[in-house]
Amino acid sequence: MTNRKHNFNAGPTVLPLTVLETVQAQMLNYNETGMSLIEMSHRTPVFDDVIVRAKQSISELYQVPDTHEVMFLQGGAALQFAMIPLNFGNGGAYIDTGVWSSRAIEEAQIQGDTKVVFSGKSDQYRSLPTADSIGAMGQGVPFLHYTSNNTIYGTQFHYTPDTNVPLICDMSSDFISRPVDVSKYDLIYAGAQKNAGPSGVTILIINKTVSRQFTGRSDVPKIMRYETQAKKDSMYNTPNTFGIWVVGMVADWVLSLGGLADMAERNQRKADLLYGTLDSLDAYNAVAEKSARSHMNVTFKMATVEAEKVVLAEAERRGIVGIRGHRSVGGLRASIYNAVEYSDVEALCQLLTDMQHT
Amino acid sequence: MTNRKHNFNAGPTVLPLTVLETVQAQMLNYNETGMSLIEMSHRTPVFDDVIVRAKQSISELYQVPDTHEVMFLQGGAALQFAMIPLNFGNGGAYIDTGVWSSRAIEEAQIQGDTKVVFSGKSDQYRSLPTADSIGAMGQGVPFLHYTSNNTIYGTQFHYTPDTNVPLICDMSSDFISRPVDVSKYDLIYAGAQKNAGPSGVTILIINKTVSRQFTGRSDVPKIMRYETQAKKDSMYNTPNTFGIWVVGMVADWVLSLGGLADMAERNQRKADLLYGTLDSLDAYNAVAEKSARSHMNVTFKMATVEAEKVVLAEAERRGIVGIRGHRSVGGLRASIYNAVEYSDVEALCQLLTDMQHT
Repeated sequence: MTNRKHNFNAGPTVLPLTVLETVQAQMLNYNETGMSLIEMSHRTPVFDDVIVRAKQSISELYQVPDTHEVMFLQGGAALQFAMIPLNFGNGGAYIDTGVWSSRAIEEAQIQGDTKVVFSGKSDQYRSLPTADSIGAMGQGVPFLHYTSNNTIYGTQFHYTPDTNVPLICDMSSDFISRPVDVSKYDLIYAGAQKNAGPSGVTILIINKTVSRQFTGRSDVPKIMRYETQAKKDSMYNTPNTFGIWVVGMVADWVLSLGGLADMAERNQRKADLLYGTLDSLDAYNAVAEKSARSHMNVTFKMATVEAEKVVLAEAERRGIVGIRGHRSVGGLRASIYNAVEYSDVEALCQLLTDMQHT
Repeated sequence: MTNRKHNFNAGPTVLPLTVLETVQAQMLNYNETGMSLIEMSHRTPVFDDVIVRAKQSISELYQVPDTHEVMFLQGGAALQFAMIPLNFGNGGAYIDTGVWSSRAIEEAQIQGDTKVVFSGKSDQYRSLPTADSIGAMGQGVPFLHYTSNNTIYGTQFHYTPDTNVPLICDMSSDFISRPVDVSKYDLIYAGAQKNAGPSGVTILIINKTVSRQFTGRSDVPKIMRYETQAKKDSMYNTPNTFGIWVVGMVADWVLSLGGLADMAERNQRKADLLYGTLDSLDAYNAVAEKSARSHMNVTFKMATVEAEKVVLAEAERRGIVGIRGHRSVGGLRASIYNAVEYSDVEALCQLLTDMQHT
């Protein structure tokens, strides 16, 4: 596909070409069934195979232990922001590393008091808490919540917080991008639309002690209890069948490239190339503090908004899309998720080099 | 596509072939943008155009007045079952016409007392309340809720209840299948996966007095308030971009066939053919009471389960799929949604005629 763009969208964003080609090839006839997968009842053996294999592939990627299970829900991370306090209880501790953390906190505060144990607000969310400060944050609370990667600011945790309370992580923007010891978490959740698939699917890896027995208030809607969906294998109601199909294929694509350790190495190489270029050129300033730099979203600024506009215009001319910074912070941002190729980053670095004197 | 099945699945189910062909043709390159629609940020002008046009097409189909608006949410009808009492208040009146009504009632009862003003349970949900009994049902309650079409039992309301309280309808299984005066409703909601698109999108037509000002309890999660999504044009969080794209194309397909009145006529012809065949053959008994017969799901039984198995086996041989009855009621069921062609129903009737002496 010579006409494919260099896609640095923050999400939804680029998917593996082989996955899109499979969707295309099978759109009218899924695996010789005589119909599209999206025309098929979710109560058929064919779709059951799709959802079971998608769960298995994610389980294989993360080596999910028997204590945990994979679930597919709808409603995005935003619905999880509400479900977390309703299922884990009020008074949770939150690490505030930007907009997505703040929205999780906002929903939790609607249910009851919330402890914000760290806030990066004073330095515009350019930094993250240090590893050894975390343990003390999580004493005597029902859970500790954090956002592993922050798309808007370009920051990413490069360690798993060590805490003695249940750990919950919004991994929406770095899910299946690197190995994680899931046994340390009671809940990992991710909107699929960054690394894992199209929008409209939320992937959960959840401790069965939470998913198999609801212990919250009696007026929590049934659909908002993890137990309801877990006991129906994520099919209490009709799931997003298309999305789950694609997520399964994307997970298989990561497996085919060697799994999460290899994917992390691949992402590290791309990040090194891009940050290296930014650091070597005076025209660009990477925004995030070095120790917190994200391997998923690289944020940077130029001296003037005018210079950034010139670069954006040239980018468009070269088929490089999605590098405008989030409207709340301005600047430039390149999202280099799993399916972004090294050659895409090379094209971007060439642009930045060529345009350094604008 | 000569290998397409005759698809009578109850949902997700058959979509217009032209829509699938467009999805296929554009899977790698949406409208010459150099990327798939599912690889595109929902914050781009390209996707904004997709969602705005999808809303416009549904508005055009139903001639939605300025007092109402179209919304796209996630979570299916099941999430609406919970959102309704949280937004409209407790103590609503419900017409119980089967499993889906019952699940709506179950969620409402978790929030507070609910009035079940009609139940079809005693005759296994084969009948519906009469039109003139409805008015009295809805006195002094915050809303009256009903399910316009009942997939499992094959019943359908052929009138709009006349009531003086806010009217709410789950139209999941007959949405965009016939004209409806939406001004009579405060809320119409529908999972897309029957007539309108793939699973994972919920379509709402809602009175702005409800969607633009939340008046419920202060502890209702922000994401569960219609106001939250309405004020963000259904993009408070990342929507199901693929699903909305397809829903828009399906709505345009209905418009291209003449709109809802023409679609209703087309569906009437298919239903007349199938019910006529069933009534003319001694081997089959239609389940629903005649006045309540659905134009979407046709339920019928044979004298023995063994005879039904023989018919199912022959159906499979002929490429006719999805005619096994719902597991909770048994028997046979053919779902003849919008995208089922008259010729598909002819193939089914031929099967039934050929197999009447099994």
